[in-house]
Amino acid sequence: KINGDRLWASLMELAKIGATEKGGVKRLALTDLDKQGRDLVVGWAKEAGLSITIDQIGNVFMRRDGTNNALPPVMTGSHIDTQPTGGKFDGNYGVLAGLEVVRTLNDLKIKTEAPIEVAFWTNEEGSRFVPVMMGSGVFCGAFSLETAYAAKDVDGKTVGDELERIGYKGPQVPGDHPIGAYFETHIEQGPVLEDADKVIGVVPAVMGLSWYDCVVTGMEAHAGPTPMGLRKDALQVSTKIMQEVVAIANRYPPYGRGTVGMVQVFPNSRNVIPGEVKFSIDLRNVNDELLNTMHEEMLAFIDKTRSESGLKIEIERVSYYPPCPFHPECVDAVRNATAKLGYSTMDVVSGAGHDAIYAARLAPAGMIFVPCKDGISHNEIEDAKAEHLEAGCNVLLHAMLERARI
Amino acid sequence: KINGDRLWASLMELAKIGATEKGGVKRLALTDLDKQGRDLVVGWAKEAGLSITIDQIGNVFMRRDGTNNALPPVMTGSHIDTQPTGGKFDGNYGVLAGLEVVRTLNDLKIKTEAPIEVAFWTNEEGSRFVPVMMGSGVFCGAFSLETAYAAKDVDGKTVGDELERIGYKGPQVPGDHPIGAYFETHIEQGPVLEDADKVIGVVPAVMGLSWYDCVVTGMEAHAGPTPMGLRKDALQVSTKIMQEVVAIANRYPPYGRGTVGMVQVFPNSRNVIPGEVKFSIDLRNVNDELLNTMHEEMLAFIDKTRSESGLKIEIERVSYYPPCPFHPECVDAVRNATAKLGYSTMDVVSGAGHDAIYAARLAPAGMIFVPCKDGISHNEIEDAKAEHLEAGCNVLLHAMLERARI
Ligand SMILES: NC(=O)NCCC(=O)O
Ligand SMILES: NC(=O)NCCC(=O)O
Repeated sequence: KINGDRLWASLMELAKIGATEKGGVKRLALTDLDKQGRDLVVGWAKEAGLSITIDQIGNVFMRRDGTNNALPPVMTGSHIDTQPTGGKFDGNYGVLAGLEVVRTLNDLKIKTEAPIEVAFWTNEEGSRFVPVMMGSGVFCGAFSLETAYAAKDVDGKTVGDELERIGYKGPQVPGDHPIGAYFETHIEQGPVLEDADKVIGVVPAVMGLSWYDCVVTGMEAHAGPTPMGLRKDALQVSTKIMQEVVAIANRYPPYGRGTVGMVQVFPNSRNVIPGEVKFSIDLRNVNDELLNTMHEEMLAFIDKTRSESGLKIEIERVSYYPPCPFHPECVDAVRNATAKLGYSTMDVVSGAGHDAIYAARLAPAGMIFVPCKDGISHNEIEDAKAEHLEAGCNVLLHAMLERARI
Repeated sequence: KINGDRLWASLMELAKIGATEKGGVKRLALTDLDKQGRDLVVGWAKEAGLSITIDQIGNVFMRRDGTNNALPPVMTGSHIDTQPTGGKFDGNYGVLAGLEVVRTLNDLKIKTEAPIEVAFWTNEEGSRFVPVMMGSGVFCGAFSLETAYAAKDVDGKTVGDELERIGYKGPQVPGDHPIGAYFETHIEQGPVLEDADKVIGVVPAVMGLSWYDCVVTGMEAHAGPTPMGLRKDALQVSTKIMQEVVAIANRYPPYGRGTVGMVQVFPNSRNVIPGEVKFSIDLRNVNDELLNTMHEEMLAFIDKTRSESGLKIEIERVSYYPPCPFHPECVDAVRNATAKLGYSTMDVVSGAGHDAIYAARLAPAGMIFVPCKDGISHNEIEDAKAEHLEAGCNVLLHAMLERARI
């Protein structure tokens, strides 16, 4: 069994970097704070005797040798970047649970046959730079290193330059790194486990996701003298599309999701009719056919709105991954470990994307969920119980040992 | 007659300060650029022999003595601050037309009985700091100097500090300055004159205006795992109110106006359901009873939305002035001057607020409109014809002379 107190202490220590007033964490990818977080975790890994490899997109692999180092490593990991109003557990838990597994193996002087690796992947959140799950995406070849390097934040800074600046542009070619199996522990980020009063969520699949940038262009004009009938109000037209995003999701329950999370209005002055509005659209479903139907319905609605309003409306898909069922062997490894340890459990489809879906393209993969308070995540008040985090980490230990063999 | 070329040259010179790529001007109130603009105009005034007075809110009065300086001055003026995506003419024309009147009187060595003054008022636009028409508002006592000083921009900088910083916090107590009559020339900022092919708009009245800040508070949560039915999406609720603002205006034609121009979404991340949305509401009408009905209907809709959604919705009125009919004597002075000069003309109700409505509380006031291209203002492509600007300035000269007497 792992040491739950040590795991909790490490989580709280890491959460100090970028801590917000409301008890959350703001540690956006490739900022100075991200560098501090990375340095702290790498320092801990070295203390635990792990060797460090960094690849060209800044993914970090922390390795504990096995007795047969010709075998591909059994890997676990997640990310340490956060949302602008993020919590202490999203991502960070998956990385530090991996570290706690290693510390436990060290304490117990257990040697595994296959090596064990703990990874943290660059820019999982996708808040500062799109695409989301960038590091694992480049690693598995979902998109190119050049695409990732060219991604810009709102200030025009690129991933390539920021990686260089914080000193995490490593030498290894992304993907040039074998994986035998991949596990990821994560808070559920939804309300299902808590509602059902279960401790461990076995994750059969992750919903597919489609992200878009939509730009509506009207004509800015003075809010006073411009008669209502002569306006080309980009915001009013945008609100119709924003509402339709939610309506589409509601037509495909129970796994349809539709969200507009980001909006920028130009010129954003109270007495100017908005001339341009940019906003994001996030559509999800666990069934790829339904996700595609949602996509088509959205494009059709935008076409209709374009012709009805006469305004220019541009829509561009900026991220997409299909739903990802996990490998039966890894799902079973999680199920078996949970049964052995006697935790209450249920299956939970993941609504959030995780680095595991990209790892799953290269090796058998599976995930372990634990409850989070009120199902809230991507929020500074995100919270989780130490006993649940400990339970998830124990399941991780045993699932990894099943694959790595003692 | 005034010198149209000289007027145009001054307009183009002033427009260089804060010039934008698209041919507009961005010279927000109390910025370094505003200071440069103020310095340029004050320099020109001194060259024309005018004496300068600055009051505590940064209003600047540029005076040409009369033969009887016991008489209150006949004043004209406007503002030189602009919108974030503003044009070359809004406000600037009114100030430089006044300067051109003075230059013409100097050229012709005409002495007026009453003194002539040209004013520019602080922060007319209200883009950077609310309330709008701040300088003339404090001058006429519509709100206090303390209220104005405490107003903050989005970065938390105050009017008091910024005035001090740019060196335009003058010694005179606002309002401690007599006015005999007030005229203001302005581009129409709407399409009426151009549509009717008229050169001069005589302005019988200005619409009343009500400005609000609305804040909708939901709960930010992850866009993937949070089921549609469990969301408290502040943006979706906001879009209903945004649409109602326009619906209300459409119920009170032809002078009802409703605009949402400014929106801020928190945390503004594409995979986070918005937890808070702030936006502005701008309602106008030329009839105060109808404006009040619009106000009541909006509050009722917000109450309904609050109880239907269960979200917290706060609404605060941040600016209000009633419709302002101008003084018959000043309206007639404009009408007479236009007739004498033989320009085509019609009456045009002003949809935009102007410093003249506050001056009108202290002295007889009137306004002169000239067409602007496609009725567009508060836009970088705002444009006006030199011949129309010249015509408006000629009308100003003759209307002022009627009141100031030679
Ligand atoms: N787990 C997580 O927050 N991933 C970010 C990508 C997503 O929005 O699903
Ligand atoms: N003229 C002008 O743009 N005034 C600003 C106040 C308003 O929005 O009417």
